[in-house]
Amino acid sequence: MLPEYLSQVKKLVKDKMLKSISNNNKIEEAMAYSALADSKMIRAGLVFASSETNKNISKESIITLSSAVELMHTYSLIHDDLPCMDDDNLRRNQPSNHIQYGEANAVLAGDALQALAYEIIVNDNFLSSDDKVNAINLLSKACGKNGMVFGQYLDIENENNQSIDIKKLDDIHNLKTGKLIECAVMLGQIGSSLESESLNALRDFSSKIGLAFQITDDILDVTQIESILGKNKNSDAKNNKLTYIDIIGLGEAKLKANKLTDLALNSLNQSNINNIDKLIEMAKYLIGRES
Amino acid sequence: MLPEYLSQVKKLVKDKMLKSISNNNKIEEAMAYSALADSKMIRAGLVFASSETNKNISKESIITLSSAVELMHTYSLIHDDLPCMDDDNLRRNQPSNHIQYGEANAVLAGDALQALAYEIIVNDNFLSSDDKVNAINLLSKACGKNGMVFGQYLDIENENNQSIDIKKLDDIHNLKTGKLIECAVMLGQIGSSLESESLNALRDFSSKIGLAFQITDDILDVTQIESILGKNKNSDAKNNKLTYIDIIGLGEAKLKANKLTDLALNSLNQSNINNIDKLIEMAKYLIGRES
Repeated sequence: MLPEYLSQVKKLVKDKMLKSISNNNKIEEAMAYSALADSKMIRAGLVFASSETNKNISKESIITLSSAVELMHTYSLIHDDLPCMDDDNLRRNQPSNHIQYGEANAVLAGDALQALAYEIIVNDNFLSSDDKVNAINLLSKACGKNGMVFGQYLDIENENNQSIDIKKLDDIHNLKTGKLIECAVMLGQIGSSLESESLNALRDFSSKIGLAFQITDDILDVTQIESILGKNKNSDAKNNKLTYIDIIGLGEAKLKANKLTDLALNSLNQSNINNIDKLIEMAKYLIGRES
Repeated sequence: MLPEYLSQVKKLVKDKMLKSISNNNKIEEAMAYSALADSKMIRAGLVFASSETNKNISKESIITLSSAVELMHTYSLIHDDLPCMDDDNLRRNQPSNHIQYGEANAVLAGDALQALAYEIIVNDNFLSSDDKVNAINLLSKACGKNGMVFGQYLDIENENNQSIDIKKLDDIHNLKTGKLIECAVMLGQIGSSLESESLNALRDFSSKIGLAFQITDDILDVTQIESILGKNKNSDAKNNKLTYIDIIGLGEAKLKANKLTDLALNSLNQSNINNIDKLIEMAKYLIGRES
């Protein structure tokens, strides 16, 4: 059952983070505050689920790579929540990092979380150097100027842009959210012997579930209560950002998320990859989740 | 002659940065704005100078590692200049990044510069995977929660602390400035065959010149004009941060910088390392510079 699987993933990743952030100083405290706060750890779950198809990676290294993705995701949330960005004061059911620790420390905690994501990969005990280099290549590209950071720029740049269309919205979220989700799936394949056709199927799968995930985020922002979401409702409306609901409506948005998930599952099912059960469960969970 | 040597280093590193930041979007524009602005490139110079003692590294890889350190340093300057940090509006003789591009883009440009530092190392054509892993290990540790970021935290945390002593000030600057300077020197040794005793001598050398560099910064803040410094004068005073000048006075500060440099040079001269001329010149340049 997936929630149980994700619970196990969360426990392992939290243990790893606890060991990696020793809480010796205020910056580590601020890092741990956000990284260890209760979250769904979807990206870690995707690294694990993807790695079920990969016999060439150790459990310890799966935990390392999952933790790296979650550290990176946490840094991006801390920076995105800053007053100069989305100015959100609630995250993971607690005050945002800059509310708790001040803006300067929130910027620094995010910066240090990014550095730590790379640091724990290079210090993994089981990955080969080639594997580490491949993992850092995936992660740095996904998170950089042509990936997640660029997506966040576009997201903010298009505040107050009321003429944004669905194609543009897809582009923004493919970068802002999709790149790291694709990265998570591909990190599960570090060292794997899959052929390029199968890897392409995984990339196609992950880019589609990444977008479905973001559309579901927009849907939940309308349909779910704040205490279950654990973050500010109507943040996009406050910042004059158009969402999928604004552009195509709630019904169409649900259809689009479902269709993307179907297409993602088709890509997987038509591939020659074995042991894809957990990836299928994750894809279904992403659009069926409550927060 | 050292200025000529540094000019060559700057040209090579700028060329590499130009190739790495393609200016296709606003974030790349903001990254290039700060990274390519005229600067002394002392850290790149230290990678080069250190690598003169190392026969096992290619010119291209020296350029890569130098560029990575400069990208990292640039990101730290952009974030340090933010209103929530030191709130400085002049850097490298031009408006600070957030003055030119806004706070959100400055945060993002810094974030992307950090990612790019790692990305260009993993994509180097000549370093082995082991070398890349070693380089990223050095860089991520130097810049993270127990290095540069922690130093910047302490620096801000001690604003308004008028009882700070010289030991504490040394600790802050060893972290904030010294860690990345030591990292630059050690990156020049990637792949080197130096024995641990020699590497320790280099570490000792670099930690001492790192502190001498920072003391000289404080001296120049008092003795030099803003247009030559290229950054705001009296920034520390504005933020109620005590400097070496405040605590021990200008004369003692100069003596301390000179003494540290002498000790650093002793470490080098007493070691068995060959081809240390450029490192010696760099150490002397750091305390003799005009900006």
